[in-house]
Amino acid sequence: MSSSTSPPPSVEEALLKLLAGLEPNQADGTGKSGDQDSEFGQQLAGPRLGIGLDSCVIPLRHGGLSLVQTTDFFYPLVEDPYMMGRIACANVLSDLYAMGITECDNMLMLLSVSQKMNEKDREKVMPLMIRGFRDAAEEGGTSVTGGQTVINPWIIVGGVASVVCQPNEFIMPDGAVPGDVLVLTKPLGTQVAVNAHQWLDQPERWNKIKLVVTREEVKEAYQEAMFSMATLNRTAAGLMHKFQAHAATDVTGFGLLGHANNLAMQQRSDVAFVIHNLPIIAKMTAISKAHGNAFRLLQGLSAETSGGLLVCLPREQAAKFCAEMKNHTSGAQGASGGAWIIGIVEKGDRRARIIEKPRIIEVPPRGSLAARQDNSATGPELSSNLS
Amino acid sequence: MSSSTSPPPSVEEALLKLLAGLEPNQADGTGKSGDQDSEFGQQLAGPRLGIGLDSCVIPLRHGGLSLVQTTDFFYPLVEDPYMMGRIACANVLSDLYAMGITECDNMLMLLSVSQKMNEKDREKVMPLMIRGFRDAAEEGGTSVTGGQTVINPWIIVGGVASVVCQPNEFIMPDGAVPGDVLVLTKPLGTQVAVNAHQWLDQPERWNKIKLVVTREEVKEAYQEAMFSMATLNRTAAGLMHKFQAHAATDVTGFGLLGHANNLAMQQRSDVAFVIHNLPIIAKMTAISKAHGNAFRLLQGLSAETSGGLLVCLPREQAAKFCAEMKNHTSGAQGASGGAWIIGIVEKGDRRARIIEKPRIIEVPPRGSLAARQDNSATGPELSSNLS
Repeated sequence: MSSSTSPPPSVEEALLKLLAGLEPNQADGTGKSGDQDSEFGQQLAGPRLGIGLDSCVIPLRHGGLSLVQTTDFFYPLVEDPYMMGRIACANVLSDLYAMGITECDNMLMLLSVSQKMNEKDREKVMPLMIRGFRDAAEEGGTSVTGGQTVINPWIIVGGVASVVCQPNEFIMPDGAVPGDVLVLTKPLGTQVAVNAHQWLDQPERWNKIKLVVTREEVKEAYQEAMFSMATLNRTAAGLMHKFQAHAATDVTGFGLLGHANNLAMQQRSDVAFVIHNLPIIAKMTAISKAHGNAFRLLQGLSAETSGGLLVCLPREQAAKFCAEMKNHTSGAQGASGGAWIIGIVEKGDRRARIIEKPRIIEVPPRGSLAARQDNSATGPELSSNLS
Repeated sequence: MSSSTSPPPSVEEALLKLLAGLEPNQADGTGKSGDQDSEFGQQLAGPRLGIGLDSCVIPLRHGGLSLVQTTDFFYPLVEDPYMMGRIACANVLSDLYAMGITECDNMLMLLSVSQKMNEKDREKVMPLMIRGFRDAAEEGGTSVTGGQTVINPWIIVGGVASVVCQPNEFIMPDGAVPGDVLVLTKPLGTQVAVNAHQWLDQPERWNKIKLVVTREEVKEAYQEAMFSMATLNRTAAGLMHKFQAHAATDVTGFGLLGHANNLAMQQRSDVAFVIHNLPIIAKMTAISKAHGNAFRLLQGLSAETSGGLLVCLPREQAAKFCAEMKNHTSGAQGASGGAWIIGIVEKGDRRARIIEKPRIIEVPPRGSLAARQDNSATGPELSSNLS
């Protein structure tokens, strides 16, 4: 349900507008339907969520259960087909995880095979992509039992994730209250890292940024972005329950601020989100600045793929949430991506903003020397900008 | 879950093979998983269906319920965007209907907007396509609450249909027994009609077929194909319960024989399907022959889009099933497409075949004079070739 990273934001918005035309009840303009009527001629109990948020929530005809599902597909953005499959799967599941859902009953895979590939390349690449997707699904405790493939000029990869939940299994993303703290579970800058990596082979582009970054740093950042995008947000989803999260979303094509705004709009209370800190993959800030700020990274508008969860937590729980995320992170496999306190929830008009001079947290790649020395992770952020 | 009409069959088969790699348990080679293990660490009751059939059936953690879902997307094949939206929706829902499921809890729409369209065309075409999709969903008693859009060289339209069912709501497609009768609920020849319509503007192609068909007949056949593809198989799904159907599938990209073979492979009993009659949109047989039989229509291999259900019925129920389908058809809106007895189920080795000289049933377009005169519909077929 989240947006693809490929088209520029203006097109994205046009598409969202198009899809919003599908809503049966748009009276409140929030993309959230208050209409409890069902097509089965009866009033179905339970919350209902429609277009514009991460997943749709459909009350079922059976026993107070809800169907929660989401779909996402996009174009490959890393060169490794296996990792691309993992990223696509993590990106689809992330929409469920953003609702605190840790289980998934079924996945379908959506795939288009490029007509421009010869048979040999196709037979090499596509099974790897499928394997990556399947392995990530297995890591998420689910499996892929169906799908659809077509031939297309471009490769497309994506999927559908569905789960039938009892009411206590998901957290509706509308309960933030003033005093809450905002936590982000993956660093920003994936798109910058992916692009910078492509520029290694484009001298004209590379010359623009080579004064601020080494080739080695770009390669490390690219590896970091790839592993971060392939990391499931499942640990964070589980901790949302443990630490009583009030609302969450995942950060993808609209960037941190775009998704923070979408989430703020959905809140029942009159709240505003204020973001003070931006955890960003190391060196991506410098690259973004050297590139004329075209990514709008520091404005929170650089697209992310399979980004972290943005979670609204009670103030007294946020530090514990981050500490536990960090513990999970230390196991290299199944790394959860860490967590950073990035802002607060105030009384306000259901918008999100970034303060004028946000603190940039340079997140070192996990394989790097800096990462091995800096194990303080979430410590310093807890006290800064938030008092 | 069915195949797209665009790529040639050989590519389709390669894709199916690719996707089959997703199966957790392929030991029996049927694409049907006998594995009742779940990812939740418990044995879940209920049947389970995987890749290769119309829908997947996933036993849920809750109260004996199953999640049944399917996805399908393809490229526009008719010029009318509204009708194209309807067809795409009917095609997705058809996979549920093939299991005798008449309700759908939720639909997601998958859409790619062509980068080659200018903004004006895009704003005209895409909302119509979405509206057609939504209207067909409403006719099916369901609604569209989410989706994903990307920009792509080609327009893609499709969706996901999901329903949570009690065991008595669906009919597993594996219960055919010798003595059953095969019924088809829409005529064949949609791909021939769509292609012939394009050839009206291609003199070289048109010259090959103009001796066997008039321009007017091609236009009528195209209209008939369009309405047939946009017709939901929902009536047939309901009647499957009433008349105790033993198994069914829907006819799409692999053609009648391809899908009949897939269905035969899934049967629990040692059966074979023998097809004697081919109901085909009027004049499409002649066009297919004049075109050097490139469509392989009479071999049952011409791709269909949003085709009818192929239903295995107890012999004593088949005529009643067809008669009731005919009654539903007479209401112009929500036409169910009629029904024809096309063959029998024998003892055999789980394959389907068409007899050497099948009887061709020329199905007149519903708007035509012939259709108004020939209201006998399913009558003649009942006695022929089946004794």
